[in-house]
Amino acid sequence: MALDRPTVSPPDLDAIYAPVVDGLARVESRLTELGEGKFSYLTEPLNHMLESIGKMMRPAVTLLSAGFHPNDGKNAEIMAGAVELLHIATLIHDDTVDDSDLRRGRATVANLWGRDAAVVVGDYIFAASATFVCDTGNVRVIRRFAETIMELSKGQLYEMANAYSPEQDMAAYLDRIYNKTASLFATAAETGAVLSGTDEPTVQALRDYGYNLGMAFQIFDDILDVRGSREKIGKPVGNDLLQGVVTLPVLTYMKRNPDDNSVADFFANPEDRDPAARVIEAARVPEIIDEACAFAHEMCDKAREALARLPDVPARQSLLGLVDYVIARDR
Amino acid sequence: MALDRPTVSPPDLDAIYAPVVDGLARVESRLTELGEGKFSYLTEPLNHMLESIGKMMRPAVTLLSAGFHPNDGKNAEIMAGAVELLHIATLIHDDTVDDSDLRRGRATVANLWGRDAAVVVGDYIFAASATFVCDTGNVRVIRRFAETIMELSKGQLYEMANAYSPEQDMAAYLDRIYNKTASLFATAAETGAVLSGTDEPTVQALRDYGYNLGMAFQIFDDILDVRGSREKIGKPVGNDLLQGVVTLPVLTYMKRNPDDNSVADFFANPEDRDPAARVIEAARVPEIIDEACAFAHEMCDKAREALARLPDVPARQSLLGLVDYVIARDR
Repeated sequence: MALDRPTVSPPDLDAIYAPVVDGLARVESRLTELGEGKFSYLTEPLNHMLESIGKMMRPAVTLLSAGFHPNDGKNAEIMAGAVELLHIATLIHDDTVDDSDLRRGRATVANLWGRDAAVVVGDYIFAASATFVCDTGNVRVIRRFAETIMELSKGQLYEMANAYSPEQDMAAYLDRIYNKTASLFATAAETGAVLSGTDEPTVQALRDYGYNLGMAFQIFDDILDVRGSREKIGKPVGNDLLQGVVTLPVLTYMKRNPDDNSVADFFANPEDRDPAARVIEAARVPEIIDEACAFAHEMCDKAREALARLPDVPARQSLLGLVDYVIARDR
Repeated sequence: MALDRPTVSPPDLDAIYAPVVDGLARVESRLTELGEGKFSYLTEPLNHMLESIGKMMRPAVTLLSAGFHPNDGKNAEIMAGAVELLHIATLIHDDTVDDSDLRRGRATVANLWGRDAAVVVGDYIFAASATFVCDTGNVRVIRRFAETIMELSKGQLYEMANAYSPEQDMAAYLDRIYNKTASLFATAAETGAVLSGTDEPTVQALRDYGYNLGMAFQIFDDILDVRGSREKIGKPVGNDLLQGVVTLPVLTYMKRNPDDNSVADFFANPEDRDPAARVIEAARVPEIIDEACAFAHEMCDKAREALARLPDVPARQSLLGLVDYVIARDR
C-alpha cells in the first residue's frame, strides 16, 4: 500500500531516551519496589502489569519536559512514576470493562485474577499514583493529575455511552481521543515542565507538544486497527467499528461517501456484520489511509512547532525524536 | 434479647447537626450541582446515588471537626463534599464487586446501568472527589485523602482475598474494618481539623475520635448482620459469614468454643451451608452479642475520651451526640 508514512524502521528509542536513561531506570525501580509488598493479591497483578511495562513513553515525556530548566530531577522522577502507574491502572480497568482477555499477547488482569479483583486492584493503583504525585508537594500538579483521571474515565465512559450510536462525528471523535489518550500525554509533559520550575510559556509549549503527540499517537493506533493484519494487531481487523466505535478512517470514508448508510445500518442491527465488513474493506484503501495519516501528520507538525519555541537543549532533540518514533513505530 | 445497648430511640440527628446545618446544606447543593451536567451517562447514576444520600455522617464529622478553631468554613465544606463523594464512589465499586442488586432497598448502579458503566462512573467520582480536595490547596490534606482511597481499596481487596479463609483472626478483622470503614471517618475528622487551622494536639484528638467512631460504627453493623432480622437488614441473617467473611460476633463465638470446627468446615466446603447456619444461630445468643457490643462500646468510650481533651464548644457536644447515635441507631 502507498502510505503517507516512512517504511523505514522506527528511530532507536535508546538513543532518544539517552538524556534521561538514568532517571527512567530509577522510575522503573521505584515501580518495581511497589510490587515487592507482602500482599500477594495486590502485588501479583501489579507485577504482571510491570513485567510488560512497555516503552515508558509517558514517563519519558515527563522527564524530558523537565529538561529545559536546571533542577535536581527528583520531583520529575516521582511524577514520571505516577504517570506510568496511572497508565497501568487505566489499562487494568479498560481491559475489565472491555472484557478483553489479552493485551499485546498477554493475559489481562481481569482474565487471570477475575473482573472483581481487577476493579479493586485498579482502584488501589489509581490511589497509589495519586500519593506519588502528592510527594511532589505541588498543588497545581496534583490538581492537573486528578483532572486527568476524570478525563480518562470520561473518555472511557463516552466510548461506552456512544457505542453503536450514529451520532459519532469528527468533533466527538477528537473529544474522545483527547480524553482517552492525549490528556495523559499533555499532563505528562506539563507536569514535568512545572516541576522543573521553568517559566509559563515553556510549560504551555510543552503541554501543546504533549497534547499533539498524544492525539497523533491515538490516531495512528486507530489507523492501524483498520489497515493492519490480525496477526500484527492481535485483534480482528476493524475491531473498533465491530465494537460500535467510529474512528478516523471510518469517518474519512463516510465523509467521502455520504450516501453510503452501511455504518448506520450496522449500528441499527449489529447482529448482521456484513455492512461493517464492507466499510472496513473500503476504509483500508490507500486514499483513505493516506488522508487519515495526513491528519495525524498535522498533529505531529504542531507538536514540532511547539518545540520550535524552546531552546535547543538535548531534551528537545529527544522530544522531536519521539514524534518520529510515533510516526514510524510498528505497533 | 438482653443487649448491652439502650432500647430507646436514637438521638435526633437534626439536633446533633444544628451547629453545621447551613454548611451541610451548602455541601449537599454543591454535590447536586455535580449531577446537573449534560452527560446523562454520568449524571444519571450520580443523581441516583445522590437521591439516597443518607445521613451525611462523614461530611458532618468533617464540618464539626473544623469547629474548634475560628475559620470561614469554606475549605471544610469543600472537604466535606469530597468525603461524601469518595464514600459514594466506594459504594458504587463495592456493589459492583459484591454483585449486589440492592442497597438499602434501592437498585444499585451496577444493577441499573450495568457493571461496566459502574466501574467507570465510580472511577470518575473518585477523581472528582480528588479535584474537590485539590481546591483546598492543602497538600497534607490531599495526601491523607489519597492514602484513604488506598486504604479503602485495600480493605475491599483483603475481604475478597481472604473470603472463606480460615486465617481470619481478630487482628485481621480489626485491620480490615479500619481500612474499609474507620479510615474514612478518621480522615473526615482529621482533615476538617487541619483545614480549620487548629493546633496539632487538637488534630490528633479529632483523628482518634474519628477512628474510634468509625470502628464502632462498623462493629455495630457487623453485629446487626447476625442479630437482625432479614426484613430489617434487607439481607439474609448472617450474610457476612455466608459470604466467607468472619466478623466480631463469629470471632467471639469461636473464641468461646475453640473445639467447634464449624466455620472451618463451612469454608472447606461452602456448598454445605449447615455448619454456617449453626454458627450464626449460636452467635445470636445474648451472651455473644453482649460481649461483641461491649467491645464496640470500648471504642465509643475511646472516642469520648479523645473529645474530653478538647474545649467544650458546640461542635464537641455534637460529636458526642454522634457517638450516642452510632450506639442507638436502628440500621
